[in-house]
Amino acid sequence: MPEIRKDPVTGRLVILSAERAQRPQPFALDRNPVDMGPCPFCAGNETMTPPEVFAYRADQKHSDRPGWTVRVVPNKYPAVVNDGNSSKYKDGIYEWMNGLGVHEVIIESPDHVENMAMLSEKQFEQVLLAYRDRMLYLSSDKRWRYILLYKNQGTEAGATLPHVHSQLIALPLAPKEVADEMTGARGYFDSTGDCVYCELIRREIHDGRRIVAGNERFVVLCPYASRFCYEVWVLPRKHLSCFDTTPKDDLAELSRTLRQILIRLNRQLADPPFNYMIHSNPLGEAENGFYHWHMEIVPKLTQVAGFELGSGSYINPVVPEDAARLLREVAL
Amino acid sequence: MPEIRKDPVTGRLVILSAERAQRPQPFALDRNPVDMGPCPFCAGNETMTPPEVFAYRADQKHSDRPGWTVRVVPNKYPAVVNDGNSSKYKDGIYEWMNGLGVHEVIIESPDHVENMAMLSEKQFEQVLLAYRDRMLYLSSDKRWRYILLYKNQGTEAGATLPHVHSQLIALPLAPKEVADEMTGARGYFDSTGDCVYCELIRREIHDGRRIVAGNERFVVLCPYASRFCYEVWVLPRKHLSCFDTTPKDDLAELSRTLRQILIRLNRQLADPPFNYMIHSNPLGEAENGFYHWHMEIVPKLTQVAGFELGSGSYINPVVPEDAARLLREVAL
Repeated sequence: MPEIRKDPVTGRLVILSAERAQRPQPFALDRNPVDMGPCPFCAGNETMTPPEVFAYRADQKHSDRPGWTVRVVPNKYPAVVNDGNSSKYKDGIYEWMNGLGVHEVIIESPDHVENMAMLSEKQFEQVLLAYRDRMLYLSSDKRWRYILLYKNQGTEAGATLPHVHSQLIALPLAPKEVADEMTGARGYFDSTGDCVYCELIRREIHDGRRIVAGNERFVVLCPYASRFCYEVWVLPRKHLSCFDTTPKDDLAELSRTLRQILIRLNRQLADPPFNYMIHSNPLGEAENGFYHWHMEIVPKLTQVAGFELGSGSYINPVVPEDAARLLREVAL
Repeated sequence: MPEIRKDPVTGRLVILSAERAQRPQPFALDRNPVDMGPCPFCAGNETMTPPEVFAYRADQKHSDRPGWTVRVVPNKYPAVVNDGNSSKYKDGIYEWMNGLGVHEVIIESPDHVENMAMLSEKQFEQVLLAYRDRMLYLSSDKRWRYILLYKNQGTEAGATLPHVHSQLIALPLAPKEVADEMTGARGYFDSTGDCVYCELIRREIHDGRRIVAGNERFVVLCPYASRFCYEVWVLPRKHLSCFDTTPKDDLAELSRTLRQILIRLNRQLADPPFNYMIHSNPLGEAENGFYHWHMEIVPKLTQVAGFELGSGSYINPVVPEDAARLLREVAL
């Protein structure tokens, strides 16, 4: 079973999972890539993955066969394992937990598409609905405290398989990055009575220089303190803490918004590898006035290197005002 | 001038430096690498770099000419600029500073060596002495609050040029990663009266499973909560907060220790790209009982991807006990 360990100085969490080393290509930077064989995510190859836990398909009786539009399967090489209950241990300065959790793969198309922006609007919507359905389903399990939805597209962004897919990890505790956001947002709320993300949206719309696109429901912007070149955030204009309570109409609008920004990134940066992550309220925390769910999209154009690892800060050579202008100017 | 911006929610710092985008290959992942031409770090090409600020050479009168063993020059594409004083600004939720600082390159050999482990013991010692000399020199400037010394070796680890070199960035404030370490170490000290790193060293030596190598002055280990596969730390056995007060004899021992661990990593992992960082006391903080300088070495075998970016946590497929054993068993 994997193990979740805590750094005795910083409290940073690490999931140690020897299972992950069993992947055909565990080290993304291997100089001699192995032949991956037939694609396990394509329709027709359903037996190559663990049995599906969820799918949109015309006939729900025939699982693990073609006929689906979006299919969710357990990760074959999971970082965490859904087996039993969470147990904490301590030995002097060291603390750890068993590596309990859920690690799923959302296969975003039955066809062998490698670039998410090539999916139709309808397919995008199905993907986002699947995210919401899985989050709603898993949040009823009281063992989970956080669900992180994320995507790695391209080898340089950490993808092992090229077929369009995203991943979901449910954990028994909220990780550091989310805890930091919650602390900051709660602090702002305590001193102003306002949501810091709502204020950020108002300021950015008024200023305009970092806005990439927008509509009645969502705003797309390059954040003021962008860590990475062409980093882009998508935020709902209406305050909402939990992604999984987003109404269906809003998800449809989000799918159009997201598809469009990926097309902009592809045209401006020649189909870059990228990651995106959805930051939502920790499970079991009620909808509140201070936390505002959002999506962070990070093209992978530079390496996280010694400075970033050693300082926890970032050097970004493209100011967000320039990135936003260039992305805004992309002809669609 | 570059700008240091603070994320309004998490407080994370970002250095925005358009200068950096002027590098011949600003995006390490460009699929069509440019021809870099002659190596600006080789002896004989001194005019290709900005004028040197420091060098070990037989005849100090002849700067910027061959005859040196280690040479330090300003980074030609600096992240921060040494011009004037630090000024802070605030506009509502946004806070920023001018991008004041020092960004230098330590050229580790006059010969075109690309793998640091190929340097002689003598040369290693000169490199570490140069680190110490630059830190001592820069720490007399009261504008600097932190000096980070780090190395990127290999394109995948963020190096733009292959000739062995490391970098130094002096900043007007202590970055997040260091502040987190200081907070954790101070907290442990306040409740126990002891240094958490000293306790960690005692435990690890007693346990033995995560020890890679050691001698009277230094211990080399894979940390309990290793973020990355084959992550290795080097710590002085005797408590010391500041790297730059390390005695010369200890630096000589450190250079042998460091060289040996790089050889181990090269043999076990086939010359991996890697980063290392030296974590030392912030400037202006007195030598104290709680902070313990150390070196973190991180082979670059996997990508920082969506999970890491979204959670601030890490998935590591190689448990440190296995990594330490394999590194220990390397035939030298």
